Amino acid sequence: MTNLPKKHLFDIPEGMIYLDGNSLGPLPKGAAERAVKTLTQEWGTQLIKAWNTADWMALPQKVGDRIAGFIGAAPGSVATGDTLSIKVYQALAAALKMRPERPVILSDTGNFPTDLYMAQGLISTIGKDYELRTVAPEEVADAITDDVAVVMLTEVDYRSGRRHDMVDITARAHQNGAVMIWDLAHSAGALPVDLTACNAEFAVGCTYKYFNGGPGAPAFIYARPDIVLEVEPALSGWLGHDAPFAMEPDYRPAMTTERLRVGTPPIVQLSILDTALDVWEGVSMEEIRGASVALCETFISEVEARCPDLTLASPRDADVRGSQVSFAFADGYAVVQALIDRGVIGDFRAPNIMRFGFTPLYLDQADVVRAAEILEDVMKSESWKDPKYQVRSRVT
Amino acid sequence: MTNLPKKHLFDIPEGMIYLDGNSLGPLPKGAAERAVKTLTQEWGTQLIKAWNTADWMALPQKVGDRIAGFIGAAPGSVATGDTLSIKVYQALAAALKMRPERPVILSDTGNFPTDLYMAQGLISTIGKDYELRTVAPEEVADAITDDVAVVMLTEVDYRSGRRHDMVDITARAHQNGAVMIWDLAHSAGALPVDLTACNAEFAVGCTYKYFNGGPGAPAFIYARPDIVLEVEPALSGWLGHDAPFAMEPDYRPAMTTERLRVGTPPIVQLSILDTALDVWEGVSMEEIRGASVALCETFISEVEARCPDLTLASPRDADVRGSQVSFAFADGYAVVQALIDRGVIGDFRAPNIMRFGFTPLYLDQADVVRAAEILEDVMKSESWKDPKYQVRSRVT
Repeated sequence: MTNLPKKHLFDIPEGMIYLDGNSLGPLPKGAAERAVKTLTQEWGTQLIKAWNTADWMALPQKVGDRIAGFIGAAPGSVATGDTLSIKVYQALAAALKMRPERPVILSDTGNFPTDLYMAQGLISTIGKDYELRTVAPEEVADAITDDVAVVMLTEVDYRSGRRHDMVDITARAHQNGAVMIWDLAHSAGALPVDLTACNAEFAVGCTYKYFNGGPGAPAFIYARPDIVLEVEPALSGWLGHDAPFAMEPDYRPAMTTERLRVGTPPIVQLSILDTALDVWEGVSMEEIRGASVALCETFISEVEARCPDLTLASPRDADVRGSQVSFAFADGYAVVQALIDRGVIGDFRAPNIMRFGFTPLYLDQADVVRAAEILEDVMKSESWKDPKYQVRSRVT
Repeated sequence: MTNLPKKHLFDIPEGMIYLDGNSLGPLPKGAAERAVKTLTQEWGTQLIKAWNTADWMALPQKVGDRIAGFIGAAPGSVATGDTLSIKVYQALAAALKMRPERPVILSDTGNFPTDLYMAQGLISTIGKDYELRTVAPEEVADAITDDVAVVMLTEVDYRSGRRHDMVDITARAHQNGAVMIWDLAHSAGALPVDLTACNAEFAVGCTYKYFNGGPGAPAFIYARPDIVLEVEPALSGWLGHDAPFAMEPDYRPAMTTERLRVGTPPIVQLSILDTALDVWEGVSMEEIRGASVALCETFISEVEARCPDLTLASPRDADVRGSQVSFAFADGYAVVQALIDRGVIGDFRAPNIMRFGFTPLYLDQADVVRAAEILEDVMKSESWKDPKYQVRSRVT
């Protein structure tokens, strides 16, 4: 017997089929109430004292421990705060310090741009002859040569949904002396992840996608417990200090993963995220994964049967696919807009990818079939050719 | 005629005299309602579409422009997001790039520790022979030698309230070829600041103190408009890219101050801050400053008359003092706890500083006299000697 879906725990507009939880999860019930409590009963009533009396000081670690439970990480090994871009920078900078004689950061061409951008900025900041080397996703394992200091990959490709083998690539990285960083943006809350088994040194992720933490929810970073004391924080902020309130003149990192915290934590957004994680009560990642694969398989077969002009842009093999399905179509932008007008919310990624995320917490098979029916109608009626669907907005 | 104070625009518990707005401002009325609107009417109803339909994409810049108005900065010259520590790092990294031949970051020993820590982390990341040189606050101007790449100072000392002369020190820095960074943590919303007149290259600040943005409210960074295109972002995240949604493989900075944005903006906290700034309608910084000086003068004279055991640790001359007053006392920690128990909220900074912030938005002369009376009573009765006031909590 399954606990899924848990639609009743979310506030999703009537009639909307939301296939964009891989971009921004929907509003969990209780989140607004939690925000009001944080603002009125904690901030408003206790003011500065709330850092102690409402235990704001412990909230980043509490939420980190909850996230750890989803990604096979030990309690205390996940720090929260900032944005995913910042966490990528922290992991990369620390990893390069661990392999000072090696000049290459290896990634793949399908990685999310900000990960590559942050690497470029770090290299520019260091000012030495580091190289960001990107290869096709399927070539990564063989590209881990002995000049590679760090392999930085996103497990699930944000466009295609293609999934790397974390265990295999991490082993290959270690065999060749490289440090491994996994970006779990499209994994955490979507797939079973076992960081302990995979043995990677670092992982980073965000919480506004599959964890439904809301727009701008804080990011997280994992450091393998046995290497924490080797991690030199590049972003050595006071809340990563071993004694933040001693106000010492010199930075002295905390003896735990807390050294990867930086500044004052975003308490309001953290508290919303904390409540958003309550939705997962009684659900295992294995159960989520099983349901996600079934939803994706249904969508692929329904769309392929109904929409011959669309080309599957995700792997057909569920084992190497994340929790999303993408189809390529030259006018994909307009099709996505037409779908949105019909209540089916997917998104578009340049140049021609229509993305659909499948989140068993609030989607069932009937939703998926209905989405495919509407997509068929949009394609057959050519309603996407309406000029109003051609105008590009800033975010799709 | 004055518009001050505006106590009715804040939710402050009955009987509390809040002298800690220099650490965390109180809850403005309307903030909780705004959070609920952002969560339920925007996130909950519009989901991913809200980036466009609720104009979340524009919110960081909208709030930045509002902050710009308080600090004498041109519209478009202030970017918001992240934490103050991150913004310090961005400014410092960019400043060092602008003076590649100079090895010294100059600051003062009174600077807030995280500013110094971030400089240490940056130096360690770059791995070259940079030096963080700190001198006593009064020695800074004469210490700007020709090996100084960047002068990084906080205008108002977080412990003593001592205030630097921004115009004078900036001019000295420029005469000696150094880049100037001002940390406005204790200035923005507290004192008139005129970045345009002062001509500093960079400024950074936080919004949870005098702007009352709430716990973990986002930070801001200013870059002088004429140098923006020279600023090389160390933290080159996708939202600082010239075309974030083009998903280009290479970082290409925005042609505006937006290049100092990094990752996905904290929309919930930004919207609360946006509402918090409404409180300032019809108030000028000059009016705030006049009232603040009057409140501080009253507090100093009342406390000195009533509490001979306390030593003023702030400048006596209002011209060189920010919007806070500090007194030194060996058992200051316990005294502050005893005051808090009596409804007078100040804070303590190691080793012996009792800090009291004066914020004319919600404090008047009667509050200040009453606070001094209660402090007198705590001192004369020695109620602070109660053992319960000796136990150190993590934040005071």
